Amino acid sequence: MTSLQPIRSAERGAPVRTIVPVILCGGSGSRLWPVSRKDFAKQHVPMLGGASPFQRTLSRLDPAVFGRPIVVSAAPARFLVADQAKEAGVAIDIALEPQGRDTLAAVTLAACLAARRDPDAIVMVMPSDHLIPDADAFARSAAAAARLAQDGHIVVLGIQPTAPSTAYGYIAPGAPLGAGGFTVDRFVEKPDAERAARLIDDGCLWNAGMFCFSASAGLAEIEEHAARTLAAVQRAIDESTDDLGAMALGKSFEGIAKISFDHAVMERTQRAAVVAAEFGWSDIGDWKAVWQESPRDANGVAAEGKVHAKDVTNSYLRSDGRLLCVLGVDGLAVVDTADAILVAPIERAQEVKGLVSELEAKKLPEATTPARVHRPWGWYQTMDLGERFRVKRIFVLPGKKLSLQKHHHRAEHWVCVRGTAEVVREGETIVLRENESVYLPLGCMHRLQNPGRIPVEIVEVQTGAYLEEDDIVRVEDDFGRL
Amino acid sequence: MTSLQPIRSAERGAPVRTIVPVILCGGSGSRLWPVSRKDFAKQHVPMLGGASPFQRTLSRLDPAVFGRPIVVSAAPARFLVADQAKEAGVAIDIALEPQGRDTLAAVTLAACLAARRDPDAIVMVMPSDHLIPDADAFARSAAAAARLAQDGHIVVLGIQPTAPSTAYGYIAPGAPLGAGGFTVDRFVEKPDAERAARLIDDGCLWNAGMFCFSASAGLAEIEEHAARTLAAVQRAIDESTDDLGAMALGKSFEGIAKISFDHAVMERTQRAAVVAAEFGWSDIGDWKAVWQESPRDANGVAAEGKVHAKDVTNSYLRSDGRLLCVLGVDGLAVVDTADAILVAPIERAQEVKGLVSELEAKKLPEATTPARVHRPWGWYQTMDLGERFRVKRIFVLPGKKLSLQKHHHRAEHWVCVRGTAEVVREGETIVLRENESVYLPLGCMHRLQNPGRIPVEIVEVQTGAYLEEDDIVRVEDDFGRL
Repeated sequence: MTSLQPIRSAERGAPVRTIVPVILCGGSGSRLWPVSRKDFAKQHVPMLGGASPFQRTLSRLDPAVFGRPIVVSAAPARFLVADQAKEAGVAIDIALEPQGRDTLAAVTLAACLAARRDPDAIVMVMPSDHLIPDADAFARSAAAAARLAQDGHIVVLGIQPTAPSTAYGYIAPGAPLGAGGFTVDRFVEKPDAERAARLIDDGCLWNAGMFCFSASAGLAEIEEHAARTLAAVQRAIDESTDDLGAMALGKSFEGIAKISFDHAVMERTQRAAVVAAEFGWSDIGDWKAVWQESPRDANGVAAEGKVHAKDVTNSYLRSDGRLLCVLGVDGLAVVDTADAILVAPIERAQEVKGLVSELEAKKLPEATTPARVHRPWGWYQTMDLGERFRVKRIFVLPGKKLSLQKHHHRAEHWVCVRGTAEVVREGETIVLRENESVYLPLGCMHRLQNPGRIPVEIVEVQTGAYLEEDDIVRVEDDFGRL
Repeated sequence: MTSLQPIRSAERGAPVRTIVPVILCGGSGSRLWPVSRKDFAKQHVPMLGGASPFQRTLSRLDPAVFGRPIVVSAAPARFLVADQAKEAGVAIDIALEPQGRDTLAAVTLAACLAARRDPDAIVMVMPSDHLIPDADAFARSAAAAARLAQDGHIVVLGIQPTAPSTAYGYIAPGAPLGAGGFTVDRFVEKPDAERAARLIDDGCLWNAGMFCFSASAGLAEIEEHAARTLAAVQRAIDESTDDLGAMALGKSFEGIAKISFDHAVMERTQRAAVVAAEFGWSDIGDWKAVWQESPRDANGVAAEGKVHAKDVTNSYLRSDGRLLCVLGVDGLAVVDTADAILVAPIERAQEVKGLVSELEAKKLPEATTPARVHRPWGWYQTMDLGERFRVKRIFVLPGKKLSLQKHHHRAEHWVCVRGTAEVVREGETIVLRENESVYLPLGCMHRLQNPGRIPVEIVEVQTGAYLEEDDIVRVEDDFGRL
């Protein structure tokens, strides 16, 4: 890992160390279903006509202020994290949680990892799924928080409320600390609407889960208020293994109690401080928030993809491919994906999460698994499904290799439509160029690999009586999936 | 063609000849877009969880009352007509209009064709895209009309209005004629809503375009009121050719003036009679009508396909494959197809036609061409489209053969996933069994054929820089498409 050098803040002249950004990238996002799924979290969803929130979070980090990011990710999403960071052109360190254990565990992990770089490192913890359009304003607020952190404060960034929301906790600022900071008078749990309005009148701020502290001060406070978690995280780090360049935490992580950093530390520490953020912010927590953050026309319509709207007002219309034609509605969200469509009033966007629970209860795969399934080596997607056949598109990243495998119930025809693939079939190696095909009989041992510098795309036609993913016998795998 | 025998009506004891049903199957149906398209008319759309309106029209014809149907079809839809009739298990005669020339031409054609079977044949003309759930009631009304027709009347069936609709013309019955019939006092053009209400109070009926007459009386009236059209139709019949078992009318048909049978004959003849229909009826003219005719749950929701609805009332929800998830809406139609989705209030269903005109003006193919394109030999559908490749599913009917063809810009890989195909490639004949594939290099002459008794399904992977339908050089074709 890179070592940290003190730098001078361009804005205010005070010397500030490079901030170590820690990006929390766990969790799933059923509130943006059907685009987000249990297996494809909100932070990875491309939106507003471009990059995903995770990618925007990375791109927002001005290198003059921030060092190399540490991303704390759920293990299953790690390849998606790596791919999206690569696509965004940002080099990251990845720490893999075997299980999500809430934010105390993740923040403790972040503090430990930053302290390994430099015991006095300034750490800034941030979620990966928020939208902050103004990177300069974000850097200024981060620098202000960092100055307080250097003085030993555990700083939380407070967001200026824009509505009496019941979705966030509130922070009541106390006495001024200089450098734009305040002591924290108290933390308030998610209030009802009436109380939220009073809190805003009293000058309270939203708690958006962004924290800043020096590694040493952070660890000292965690030690004081959550010693068992600290010890477990340290053990999990000691047990960690290198997993294709990512740090895979050990088994001790799994026993950690689920509790938030707010409850465990922020509400108890004597060192709490708050800095009012200068930047605009959204947690894009549902389709209403996405609509609000999207460019809209004079009728309040935000459209993404192939959309034709007539007499439509205040609506969010999104198509991932098909022609979406909407007539004469107001305040509606219509979201189309390859395998599922949502139609709901924007004002009821919060209820989508409950709707997805109903789909899960019905055991509908569309509830949890996206049509495009990401794998360590790329992705695949079913494009056609017949009675005894299935057609998939398979995308293999440069240099990546699928497992050596066979199937009991299906034969496969592979047509290479992009790049150059290498296919191993019963020990024989076949170079498959664009517009070439190969046949893999039922039961044959085979492997697909992309030895090249550009992606490989394969159209796979499976035939057989049983065509599900679980008919796969893996014999050798780069990704430990035997 | 079969000859007609007089039979005895089971209902009323009067001798009635077998009725020759003439089914008008022209026109397109943009009002049920995106399921119906210019190239896939409403009468062919499977609905209400089953057969298409055309198929229901055929199945409704009790063989004790009706003879072999004559279907008057637009030339491009003729294979769809033949396939759907075959699927419904009904043998038909098909007459092909080179162009739609409104109902006078079609009815005249029907009268001429029926007269060829038997000059005194009783002809009953009916649209193909209406819904009449009670086949027995329909047969009873037809028998009543036939009795009046045998007495020389030109009979129109009048539908009991269920609402002051402005979408239909009205018929004012006059004096009773016996056998449930009346003279016609007058025909009223589509009225405004206020006038419609008054007409209903006065006992008027809807004109649904169903007529019954003896061939001789019908032809005499057409001769009197529309002699030029009769002459042109007779010439077109003389010029007609056999087109794979259908009668393809000659060029004279194209010059016929566009006018309705109502205007040209019914409103002028002295022999007009009206029979009030005993049956329930819908012209399923838009999604509202489909919703009204569909089984609905206690909340007024009609759902077809994979639909999950929560807090939804009075809505029509249809999915052709994807999971359609709808929350908290009232009175909405949501219709999903392979390549296009419609969302519109049910009460504005009539405006869908105008919406489709807008799509046509934007030259969007989804406006006119369905995802599944029907051809004389079966159908094809694009299942995946990438930058330099396209994946199609191709369905070939038993005994059918595609044209002998080549492409300038694409190679094709064919994988047979059902049935046994015969492929001719550069003069060589290859038998392609299930789970076998063949490669057709760019520029090679090739032909696909289904020599078997069950359908053939092929997954076709095209690769190349240009992948549109117009890159096809046909050298030989069973269907005259050179």
